[in-house]
Amino acid sequence: MILVVGSIAFDTIKTPFGNVENILGGSAVHFSISASIIAEVGIVGVVGMDFSKSYIEYLQKKGIDTEGVKKVSGKTFRWEGYYEYDMNQAHTIKTELNVFKNFHPDIPEKYKTAKYVFLANIDPDLQLEVLNNIKNPKLVVSDTMNYWIENKKDRLIEVIKRTDIMLINDSEICQLFHTTNLVKAAKRIMSLGPKIVIIKKGEHGAIMFTQDSIFIAPAFPLEEVVDPTGAGDSFAGGFVSFLSKTQKLSENNLRKAVIFATVIASFTVTDFGTRALDSIQYTDIKNRYIELMKYTKFKKL
Amino acid sequence: MILVVGSIAFDTIKTPFGNVENILGGSAVHFSISASIIAEVGIVGVVGMDFSKSYIEYLQKKGIDTEGVKKVSGKTFRWEGYYEYDMNQAHTIKTELNVFKNFHPDIPEKYKTAKYVFLANIDPDLQLEVLNNIKNPKLVVSDTMNYWIENKKDRLIEVIKRTDIMLINDSEICQLFHTTNLVKAAKRIMSLGPKIVIIKKGEHGAIMFTQDSIFIAPAFPLEEVVDPTGAGDSFAGGFVSFLSKTQKLSENNLRKAVIFATVIASFTVTDFGTRALDSIQYTDIKNRYIELMKYTKFKKL
Repeated sequence: MILVVGSIAFDTIKTPFGNVENILGGSAVHFSISASIIAEVGIVGVVGMDFSKSYIEYLQKKGIDTEGVKKVSGKTFRWEGYYEYDMNQAHTIKTELNVFKNFHPDIPEKYKTAKYVFLANIDPDLQLEVLNNIKNPKLVVSDTMNYWIENKKDRLIEVIKRTDIMLINDSEICQLFHTTNLVKAAKRIMSLGPKIVIIKKGEHGAIMFTQDSIFIAPAFPLEEVVDPTGAGDSFAGGFVSFLSKTQKLSENNLRKAVIFATVIASFTVTDFGTRALDSIQYTDIKNRYIELMKYTKFKKL
Repeated sequence: MILVVGSIAFDTIKTPFGNVENILGGSAVHFSISASIIAEVGIVGVVGMDFSKSYIEYLQKKGIDTEGVKKVSGKTFRWEGYYEYDMNQAHTIKTELNVFKNFHPDIPEKYKTAKYVFLANIDPDLQLEVLNNIKNPKLVVSDTMNYWIENKKDRLIEVIKRTDIMLINDSEICQLFHTTNLVKAAKRIMSLGPKIVIIKKGEHGAIMFTQDSIFIAPAFPLEEVVDPTGAGDSFAGGFVSFLSKTQKLSENNLRKAVIFATVIASFTVTDFGTRALDSIQYTDIKNRYIELMKYTKFKKL
């Protein structure tokens, strides 16, 4: 089983292709919906009284274990933002923390032995709380965001030290180490502890660094990107679920996981919120995976 | 033989890693030095009285035919610019056209039957003059830049219509077609005539589109980028020279040419101006080519 701890949110999003109000979102939601396609996942997060039972049922129908979703008085976390034609950049209009302000992850007993743990981009203090409350995980994968780099860098470094695989945006890892060079940044982060770092570059794909290898993964070329919200968490969900399903951390399998993740994220962005993944089958993923193989192959000189 | 028409310049460049004054540069120079590694190339351009014989000899020593380099009274074209830590963006301080202002390409008789022609990013009217003065080329490859998109779009479209393979930056093709989507932009440009378009994305690699295929090429991951000036022209030189040497326009060979070009450009940016290519051997290129194969391979699901 995979344990994910992160935000559960209502998002109001405007892009050049339309807009939506208060749709289900948040890092833990995007992650778990994406991971649920091939793996079992339990979600830990907090919601308010406005989080109707139908949302819980929606998650459960996807096979997601929601025992860790705590409902407390107050309103659910809300994010409002927009994208311009350059979809790489989200512009925040408003963030209402609401019930998330006093959130402390309460890990159900049955999740504590989870072998795969994803710490989505929440307060590093909360990420550390999670790590202190789980027993002997096989793999800890963490994400973060610029806000924590700016405001809780020391605590974030503690999280990184206890992380096996770090997932992080290109702009964020550069900010963290005051460099614009991804190779240097990757070495810096691995020197702190993680054996592997995957740098997410949005429409430019991702690069995975290990101590002795580099894997450059393309993004899937798309003619229509409707809403990039959740793409990173969806990528993480694809990545961790693939590893938990296949149980191998070999270079070959890690690379497969990255491409699997890339493909899932490529579906996510074709509609608002979590909608696109509702209709995705494993064969759709497999077909795009095969396409990406074709798009990247070249022969010896 | 390859014919290149473009600028010959003295560049003054400042990057976070140092600065140089009045070093040999310009699109035709970067292209031809890069192409000369494996192919025969003739350069057409104009220089001023300050362009000493030693520069001509430097080019000739690389096997570049300089009969088309016209020396006229006045000063050689000069560009002064700088890069900040984000090396993707050149900032121009000063452009002195000098002798380039009244330049009209004068194609030596022996170049007129060149089978491979590269039109570097000069005035589209001059690019058209070149096309009107050559006989039956096998392959016309063209580049352009934002200035011509803004100021001579109609003439540029004429050039594109007569181009077989268009090489263009991502930001420029997006500007040309008022889109941020590369897949759409690629389709638009191919609808004008070119059978192939290669979109250059700097540190994010390149994408080649044909009517029925996509090839996503990574950039070579570098820990030290000293000066990106000329990377695009160096890429073009690697690309066209590979095709002229191998004489095949099959998908497989085009892909090899793109990776070959990527590798050459990856050397170019490791030193100022054209310096890095002075010490590069074919085996260096081959080794990085093999490394890139390793960096991009992944297995079936």
